[in-house]
Amino acid sequence: MRPLSRFFPILDWGRRYNRQLAANDFVAAVIVSIMLVPQSLAYAMLAGLPPEVGLYASILPLVAYAVFGTSATLAVGPVALISLMTASIIGAAHLPSGISPVLAAMTLAVISGIILLAMGLFRLGFIANFLSHPVISGFVSASGVLIAVGQVRHLLGVPKTEGNLAEILAALLSHLPDINIPTVILGFGCLGFLFWVRRGLPAILHRVGLVGMWATFIVRAGPVLAVIITTLASWYFDLASHGVKIVGTIPQGFPAFAMPSFNLQLWHQLALPALLISVIGFVETVSVAQTLAAKRRQRIRPDQELIALGMANLGAGFAGGLPVTGGFARSMVNFDAGAQTPAAGLMTAIGIAAATLFLTPVLYYLPQATLAATIIVAVLTLVDVTAIIHIFRYSRADFAAMMVTIALTLFWGIEPGIVSGVVVSLMLYLHRTSRPHIAVVGQVPGTEHFRNVLRHDVATGTSVLTVRPDESLYFANCRYLEDRIYALIAENPALQHVVLMCSAINEIDSSGLESLHEINARLRDSGVSFNLSEVKGPVMDRLDPSGFVTELTGRVFLSQYDALATLDPSALTPCRIA
Amino acid sequence: MRPLSRFFPILDWGRRYNRQLAANDFVAAVIVSIMLVPQSLAYAMLAGLPPEVGLYASILPLVAYAVFGTSATLAVGPVALISLMTASIIGAAHLPSGISPVLAAMTLAVISGIILLAMGLFRLGFIANFLSHPVISGFVSASGVLIAVGQVRHLLGVPKTEGNLAEILAALLSHLPDINIPTVILGFGCLGFLFWVRRGLPAILHRVGLVGMWATFIVRAGPVLAVIITTLASWYFDLASHGVKIVGTIPQGFPAFAMPSFNLQLWHQLALPALLISVIGFVETVSVAQTLAAKRRQRIRPDQELIALGMANLGAGFAGGLPVTGGFARSMVNFDAGAQTPAAGLMTAIGIAAATLFLTPVLYYLPQATLAATIIVAVLTLVDVTAIIHIFRYSRADFAAMMVTIALTLFWGIEPGIVSGVVVSLMLYLHRTSRPHIAVVGQVPGTEHFRNVLRHDVATGTSVLTVRPDESLYFANCRYLEDRIYALIAENPALQHVVLMCSAINEIDSSGLESLHEINARLRDSGVSFNLSEVKGPVMDRLDPSGFVTELTGRVFLSQYDALATLDPSALTPCRIA
Repeated sequence: MRPLSRFFPILDWGRRYNRQLAANDFVAAVIVSIMLVPQSLAYAMLAGLPPEVGLYASILPLVAYAVFGTSATLAVGPVALISLMTASIIGAAHLPSGISPVLAAMTLAVISGIILLAMGLFRLGFIANFLSHPVISGFVSASGVLIAVGQVRHLLGVPKTEGNLAEILAALLSHLPDINIPTVILGFGCLGFLFWVRRGLPAILHRVGLVGMWATFIVRAGPVLAVIITTLASWYFDLASHGVKIVGTIPQGFPAFAMPSFNLQLWHQLALPALLISVIGFVETVSVAQTLAAKRRQRIRPDQELIALGMANLGAGFAGGLPVTGGFARSMVNFDAGAQTPAAGLMTAIGIAAATLFLTPVLYYLPQATLAATIIVAVLTLVDVTAIIHIFRYSRADFAAMMVTIALTLFWGIEPGIVSGVVVSLMLYLHRTSRPHIAVVGQVPGTEHFRNVLRHDVATGTSVLTVRPDESLYFANCRYLEDRIYALIAENPALQHVVLMCSAINEIDSSGLESLHEINARLRDSGVSFNLSEVKGPVMDRLDPSGFVTELTGRVFLSQYDALATLDPSALTPCRIA
Repeated sequence: MRPLSRFFPILDWGRRYNRQLAANDFVAAVIVSIMLVPQSLAYAMLAGLPPEVGLYASILPLVAYAVFGTSATLAVGPVALISLMTASIIGAAHLPSGISPVLAAMTLAVISGIILLAMGLFRLGFIANFLSHPVISGFVSASGVLIAVGQVRHLLGVPKTEGNLAEILAALLSHLPDINIPTVILGFGCLGFLFWVRRGLPAILHRVGLVGMWATFIVRAGPVLAVIITTLASWYFDLASHGVKIVGTIPQGFPAFAMPSFNLQLWHQLALPALLISVIGFVETVSVAQTLAAKRRQRIRPDQELIALGMANLGAGFAGGLPVTGGFARSMVNFDAGAQTPAAGLMTAIGIAAATLFLTPVLYYLPQATLAATIIVAVLTLVDVTAIIHIFRYSRADFAAMMVTIALTLFWGIEPGIVSGVVVSLMLYLHRTSRPHIAVVGQVPGTEHFRNVLRHDVATGTSVLTVRPDESLYFANCRYLEDRIYALIAENPALQHVVLMCSAINEIDSSGLESLHEINARLRDSGVSFNLSEVKGPVMDRLDPSGFVTELTGRVFLSQYDALATLDPSALTPCRIA
């Protein structure tokens, strides 16, 4: 691949672009555009922002991704999880005077874009590895519940409910007397219809012989149908005058090139939340993109995806939109509809732009309850109870990390939830690796083999102790090794030599080296020599210039047999093989 | 060991206590008490607190440690690093009205005590493993520089200088016209004397034939001598009237049993800093205690040390003192002076209590510059330039973590410094382990051995790909394995089967299992079967009930040879041995 097309994958696929590919991409773009319009409005509402912000976030970001992205079928835009995080971040921030929530959301998108770009340029994609599967899964499920419960107020027609799960539920209960009956009928009717489309309709379509791609589209078109029907009903019956909240005026026409805020205080407040949004958005994007790429035996490049996602968020921020990421549902539709190249994304952007230009007056009467119902149906698929059960059965430590994530996400907040999950899973991992298997070994009589004294019938003397750690030495486990060795010395007063058998040590970091120095010094204080055996080549290459070997009270032996033959030949049975 | 004496080690050594041990402990206690009085005053000053707070922190905590500690010779009390952190934490906190700095320091000690106790009871000592050697070493060196530079104002007699290194230096420069000449003469005279005692005196003592224990004591007594001489000079010449700042009135008598604050806002502010102080204090304590224990082939129990340190801090908090930990210098003196049991600590507590009762009027004229000079001489031993050079030579990654710690500690603050160091070293570690060695293997012709295709002359077919990860699968590396496998599939269009050779996999966590599911699903989408071989017993025991094996598109083979014999016998050369 040429260097330039590494950063601009469009140069790669663009040269091979032809009419056939364009025709396929066009069909996919039309379908995705239709699906994206109500979704964009809904996720802007979920983020607590005016509906047009969602549309703006679905134009320029798609263009940016088409230029920089490595996935042929990924569709970026506002998604439920990131919109919820945006709402929570902007809600928690003390916005400086003059900064509107929209401006804050744009700024959040820009900061997130910069972070993603930096992560891509410095190849920091591995940061996503901090998010273990139980933590992500727990976080996504808990967020799904939070989002769904948070939308219930739109189905009831009651005022704003905010905060954690308990607070939202309490607010809903206290508002029960204020519910608006027309809204309830419309909202729950819509919800029931959408559930039926998902659960009941596929079976009917199957019975009438409609399967495959078209059946999928009819099911996916459910929300669009609900939007059309309820908008017509809202207009015809003038539901707004009966207390049903409608979307209202959406500014018509293209978004102006908008400037995010460069208020330092705001940037300071948003920097850490933007990092969280970036990492979570990246994980979602990469997992969707990889799933789709594998289906066609294609490849994506995670570090380039960071750059593409960064550019998409910069696009969102400068076009008046909210943070975006690669969405699962829309990418699946794009894939199923036969999108062949990122050009489908470019065409979708044109579609959304057309909708922004011409469709917004039509959406005036769209009831907010319809959008809430589409959000609830969409996010409930995020709640994965089976995963919770599986993880409980498979690993109690992972389950603990997951439960911390779920509990704190639901009852404290989404940022503390995910951060605590990450911290807990790192701590559990360090705890696990900080106590590696450390065997005391002895000679298998008559051979050059040395095995664990607890598992094998081996010979050991009293003056030499041989210890074999079954892990590389690094900061999390080297103190444990020290502790074990000191304990063994305290137990064996006749000891004169300790041999560290290094056959399983692939690396020794500075902390490990410091521990070896410490062990050497403390053994010297106790009058015991410290020796190494079977040190691997690369490890020895670094130990040698460090000066450790000259300081060693004992020696470095090539083999464990040599070590014992020198230090305590009497304890050794001669080797029949050698 | 009986259960009760596990938690009260005093029950263990107390029963064997006798006159001979008591005589040894008494000598050590007298020497340590004399050394501790000026030190306690100095470290209280360093923490920005009245001098008596340091004395109060050197009585009850010593009693608590004697009851609960497992080291025979560790001496707890205020130390430079923890005092600096206390100053920084209290300086940064927005103290609620009615909360004095002393009350805040006591509360910090109590919170820290509770955290340490909890860590001990829940056996969370492994948390200290988060602090790698380069991070601790860098942090201690940078703190030493900060402390020393922060004390220079006392040698010049200029007003308070605060903040990071740049701010302190700028303040010192701007105050240069205001320096007080008598203070400068006294301060730098004292500093020169103390340096000479450390560097020049030992050689002279050696020449006159004075070596060993007594020579050490004379050197260690330097600060005490400086205190006596400068106090006398200050009294005789009435230096206070010439602008030399003196310690002044220290309340005489025992500290009252004091109540820390239970202001929730204060606890909220101090909780996280207290965690940092606790972990760093614990690391210092354990490393000192282990060094000394090894010299006499004794053992300490780190989890019990947490409890002892927790009780010591509770003692400090309820007696009007500041946070304490095990100090290196004082423990060395205690050890060298021949302390045999923790009873030496009890006797030292009595010594300090006596000083608090009777000595404080004498200390009225003690110049603050003398204390500053003793602090500077003591902390400059913390600055370890050799360690920085060694780590630079040994490992660039560790050096990077160290430099981040040093730079941020000096120029941002001590808490951000150590926290960033921990985060950077964790990230570097995850980065290293997140890309484990993954070999594509082939058959060594005529044998049942399978080796890396890049290093050995082995046979491979085109329809089967065998991949061997040389690491357990866990959250930080499983996505990399996925990525590698998808890349290999994209490169080999003729592929029909993938075999994951699991001979080096000791564990698979939930994220690893999820990745195996993903790989299986994506390979199925590409029409490739996914197989496992040489799965270890314990790993298989957990995979089996998880349902993964039934979902697998391929099979689980006992040996890699079996796998190839079944999947692609044509690519295999018959095994001569089997």
